[in-house]
Amino acid sequence: MIEAAAAAGKHVFAEKPISLELEPTVRAIEAAAGAGVKLQVGFHRRFDPDWAAAASRIRTGELGEVRFFRGSLRDMRPPSVEYVAGSGGFFVDVTIHDLDTARWLAGEIDEVTAFGAALGDPAYSEVGDVDHAVVAVRFANGALGVIDNSRAAGYGYECSAEVMGSAATVRIDRHRRANTEWLSEGRSSFDRVVDFVELFREAYFLELEEFAAAIREDRSPAVTGEDGLAAFVLAQACARSMREGRTVRLRREERGTGVAYELAEAA
Amino acid sequence: MIEAAAAAGKHVFAEKPISLELEPTVRAIEAAAGAGVKLQVGFHRRFDPDWAAAASRIRTGELGEVRFFRGSLRDMRPPSVEYVAGSGGFFVDVTIHDLDTARWLAGEIDEVTAFGAALGDPAYSEVGDVDHAVVAVRFANGALGVIDNSRAAGYGYECSAEVMGSAATVRIDRHRRANTEWLSEGRSSFDRVVDFVELFREAYFLELEEFAAAIREDRSPAVTGEDGLAAFVLAQACARSMREGRTVRLRREERGTGVAYELAEAA
Amino acid sequence: MIEAAAAAGKHVFAEKPISLELEPTVRAIEAAAGAGVKLQVGFHRRFDPDWAAAASRIRTGELGEVRFFRGSLRDMRPPSVEYVAGSGGFFVDVTIHDLDTARWLAGEIDEVTAFGAALGDPAYSEVGDVDHAVVAVRFANGALGVIDNSRAAGYGYECSAEVMGSAATVRIDRHRRANTEWLSEGRSSFDRVVDFVELFREAYFLELEEFAAAIREDRSPAVTGEDGLAAFVLAQACARSMREGRTVRLRREERGTGVAYELAEAA
Amino acid sequence: MIEAAAAAGKHVFAEKPISLELEPTVRAIEAAAGAGVKLQVGFHRRFDPDWAAAASRIRTGELGEVRFFRGSLRDMRPPSVEYVAGSGGFFVDVTIHDLDTARWLAGEIDEVTAFGAALGDPAYSEVGDVDHAVVAVRFANGALGVIDNSRAAGYGYECSAEVMGSAATVRIDRHRRANTEWLSEGRSSFDRVVDFVELFREAYFLELEEFAAAIREDRSPAVTGEDGLAAFVLAQACARSMREGRTVRLRREERGTGVAYELAEAA
Repeated sequence: MIEAAAAAGKHVFAEKPISLELEPTVRAIEAAAGAGVKLQVGFHRRFDPDWAAAASRIRTGELGEVRFFRGSLRDMRPPSVEYVAGSGGFFVDVTIHDLDTARWLAGEIDEVTAFGAALGDPAYSEVGDVDHAVVAVRFANGALGVIDNSRAAGYGYECSAEVMGSAATVRIDRHRRANTEWLSEGRSSFDRVVDFVELFREAYFLELEEFAAAIREDRSPAVTGEDGLAAFVLAQACARSMREGRTVRLRREERGTGVAYELAEAA
Repeated sequence: MIEAAAAAGKHVFAEKPISLELEPTVRAIEAAAGAGVKLQVGFHRRFDPDWAAAASRIRTGELGEVRFFRGSLRDMRPPSVEYVAGSGGFFVDVTIHDLDTARWLAGEIDEVTAFGAALGDPAYSEVGDVDHAVVAVRFANGALGVIDNSRAAGYGYECSAEVMGSAATVRIDRHRRANTEWLSEGRSSFDRVVDFVELFREAYFLELEEFAAAIREDRSPAVTGEDGLAAFVLAQACARSMREGRTVRLRREERGTGVAYELAEAA
Repeated sequence: MIEAAAAAGKHVFAEKPISLELEPTVRAIEAAAGAGVKLQVGFHRRFDPDWAAAASRIRTGELGEVRFFRGSLRDMRPPSVEYVAGSGGFFVDVTIHDLDTARWLAGEIDEVTAFGAALGDPAYSEVGDVDHAVVAVRFANGALGVIDNSRAAGYGYECSAEVMGSAATVRIDRHRRANTEWLSEGRSSFDRVVDFVELFREAYFLELEEFAAAIREDRSPAVTGEDGLAAFVLAQACARSMREGRTVRLRREERGTGVAYELAEAA
Repeated sequence: MIEAAAAAGKHVFAEKPISLELEPTVRAIEAAAGAGVKLQVGFHRRFDPDWAAAASRIRTGELGEVRFFRGSLRDMRPPSVEYVAGSGGFFVDVTIHDLDTARWLAGEIDEVTAFGAALGDPAYSEVGDVDHAVVAVRFANGALGVIDNSRAAGYGYECSAEVMGSAATVRIDRHRRANTEWLSEGRSSFDRVVDFVELFREAYFLELEEFAAAIREDRSPAVTGEDGLAAFVLAQACARSMREGRTVRLRREERGTGVAYELAEAA
C-alpha cells in the first residue's frame, strides 16, 4: 500500500510496524523517498504532551548525560490468539514502542538481550509467541537500559518510562483516569488509565497535525520511515536474542532522513 | 443582554455571575422563563471530567451521607486593580464557584460566616475589596463545610475539593500539568497547573455541548439560571457576613427550574 | 496533680488540656512558675519529624509572609459517649491540637468563628457535644485560616495542615502506613495511617527527650504551660462561638514564658 | 571470623557478603552448621516495615501467580575508588541486595544476563569495576525480572521494587524524607530519602531482634547462610555474564537450612 501510494504521489502516514517483514519495510521507505512523498510512522507517544514535555527538557540538557533508561509497556488484558498470530510477534507488536522511545529519549542502541515467556494463556505458546518479555539494552553513548512488557498487567494500561542522567532524572508515569482520589476504610485509591486509546487521545490528534504540518512546510516529519525501520530491526534483534539465548549486536549507518539499523551478525 | 436575547427568542448561555446586582439577576431569569428560552450559566467545573466523575459517584451513594465539604479556589497571580474594581467583589467573582460546587456536591446551604483580608497589593483595600477569604458553611442536611480562596497562591492555580461522607471520602486535587516527575538533588517534583484555561480546557467544550443538547432535547440545561442566582445570593451573604462580622442565614423556596435563594434577614 | 508536683519540686510533663476548666489551668501554670519547675504540655505534633521539618523551613522564611493556614484533625472512628462526656467537649478535646498548630505555624490568633454538628451517633447530642466542627480563624498578622475536625472520618486518621505564604506553600499530609502501593483492576491504592499512636510513635519519644533536655539544660521547654493555656482559651472561644452563633475575639498579653490568652469579651 | 566464632560456640550475625570469595563463604556456612550455632546474614531489607508488608501480602496469595519482578538499588553519590577496589565488585557489593529481594519476593532464579558500564568516575574502570548495571532475570517459576543499579543516581537513594502477579501488583517505592510537600512557582516537590541509613533505620533494629529471637527460640533465623550464599553466587553469575557477554544459568539443590546455588556451567 505504501508503494502504491508513493507511486501515486500521495504522502503516507503508516501505523507501526511498516511491515511484518524487513525487506518490504526497506522497500516502502525507498519507494517514499524515490517518489519524494512524506512518510510518517505512527509512534504516537512522541506527540503526547507528557512525553513531549520530558523529551523537550532532556533535549535542553537538563538531565546532563543520559546514563539509564527504563521503559514499561503493559496491556491490561491480553488480545485474542488470532490477533497475536498475525501480529508479527510480541517484540514487533509491543516492544517496538519502547525501542522507539529508548532511541528518542536516550540515544541509539548497540546491543540487546531479551528474555520472553508465555505466562498467561497457553495458546500463545502454541502460536510460538510470548506474553511477557524483558530486554537489557546497551546504548551507543554507554548508557544502559531495561524494558519490560506484558500483555496482562491486570491493573491497567501501563506506559511509563524513566531516564536517569548525570544531572537529573525524569519519570513519565502514574497515569490517572482523573485527578480524583477515593478514600475508604484505611485505604486511599485512584483509578488508573486502562487502555491506550484513553491515554493517548490527544497524541493521536497531534501526530496527524504533525503529518499535515510536514506536508505543508515541505519538511521531514518528526517520525520518519527510518525511525520505523530502526525500531523494527531492534524488535527483530530482541526476538533473535530470545530465540538464541544470547546478546545481539546492531550496526547503523547514516542514510536518507535518518539512521539505518541492521543486525551486526548473520542469523 | 439576556432580556434582549430572551425577547428575541434566543437561547442564552451566560457566564457567571448573571449580573453584579441581585435585581437584574432575577429579572434575567424571569425574562428567559417568560420567553421559554433556555438559560445556562457557565459553571464550567460541573462539566470537567475529574469533577463529573466525583459527582457521579457521590450521586450513586458511594459516599453515604455527606458530612463535610471543602473547596479551595486560588489564582496563581492577582489580576489588576482595574479588573477587581469591576468584578463585583471577591465573593461574587471568586467564591461563587466554590459556592456552586458546594451546592452541587454537598447540598443546599443554610448559613455562612466569612472572613476576608487584603494581604497582597494594598490597592485592593482602596477599592474596598479583599484578596483572601475563608468561609464556614452549614448545609441544610446538617453537614459542615469550609471554603478558602486566594488571588495570589503563587505556586499555581488551585481548584480542589473534598467531600467526606459516612461511607467514603473523595478528593479532587493535585492537578499536574503532565504525568511527568522530575528528580534532582534530594528532591522529587512535578509541574502544577497554573491557570484555569489550562485546567478546564475540556470542560469549556463540554458545557457548550450540554447547552446545545438542552436546546436540541428541549429540556432544562444542567446548570440553570436558578443555580446562577443561588450562588450569587450566597456570595452576597458571604460579603455581608464579612462586612458585619456575623453569621448570615439563607432562605430558599422551590421556584421554576430550581430553588430560589434569598437572605433570611434584612440588611 | 500539677500543683502537688510543683510543691514537691518535681518537673511536670502534662498531657493536654492542662485542665478541663480555665481557673485550675491558670493555677497550675502559676504553681509551676512559682516553684521554679519546668512545665511542658503534650502537644506532640510539634516534635514529629514531618511537622518539625515544615516548621523549621517556615522559620527560615522560606514561605515568605504567611497568608493562609488549614488544619485537619479527624479520627477514624468515634470514641464512646462515656469518653466524650468527660472530655471537656469537642473543641477542648480535638480542635485544641489544630489551634496549637495554627499558633505554632502561622501566628497568634485574634478571632474565631466555629460551627459544630453531631452527625453520627445521636448520643453525642444528648451529652451536649458535637462530632464535627469547622472553624474560621483570623490571625493577628492578617492571615486567615480554616480548621476542620471530625470524630468519624472513616477512611483513617487524618492529621494534616497547609500553610500558604507569599513565597511558597507547605503541606503536611498524605500519611501512608507504608511506602507500598497496591494495584489491581483499574485501581491504584495505598494503606493510610489509621490512628494517632501509629502516626506519632516517634513524636512521643521526642517530646519526652525535649522534656529531659529542658530540665538538663535548665531552660524553658519547647511547649510551655502558656502554650497549653493559649490553645485551651482558643478552644473555649470556639465553643462559645458555636453556642452563641457569632465571632469571638481574643486578647493576649506577654506573660512569663509566653503569651497569655483570654476572651476579649464577657460571656 | 565466622569459623572462629563457630568454633567458640558463638552465634553469628554477618553483614553481606559472607566473604568476597565462594570457597570461604561455603566454609563459613558449614562451620556454623557443624558447630550448631545460628548464622544470620544482614539482608536488612527483609525486616523493613514497607518491604515486610508487601512480602506478607504476597505470601497470602494476594498477587496470584508472580509474573514479573523489578528491583532498583541506586546510591545517590559514588563511594571512593579505594572502597570500590575492596568491595568484591559491583554485583557482589550492590546487586546482591536486589538478587536477595528477587528470591524473597518472586522465587528462585534460573538465568541472568547482565550489562555493566563505568559511566561516572573513570577511575572505576581502572580498578576493573563498573558503576551502573542492568540484569535480566528468569525465575524458576517462569516469571521474568529486571534489576537496575547505579552508584550515582544523583537525586537520592533509590531502593524500590515492583512485583506483578496475575491478580495484583505491588510497588515499594517513592520513599520520602517526610510527609511534607513544598509548593512554589508552578512546582510541587518533596524531599527524597538520600541514604540507606536514613531509609532503613528501623530495619537495622528489627534484624537484630530477629537474630536474638532465633537464638532464644532455638530456630533458624529468617535470613540464613544459604540465603547469603545464593545471593553471592547469583552476583558472581551476573559478573560472569557481563564479562563473557552471555546468559549464565544457575543450578540449585536442597541443602541444610535452605537451597544451595551454584553456576550451572564451568567458567
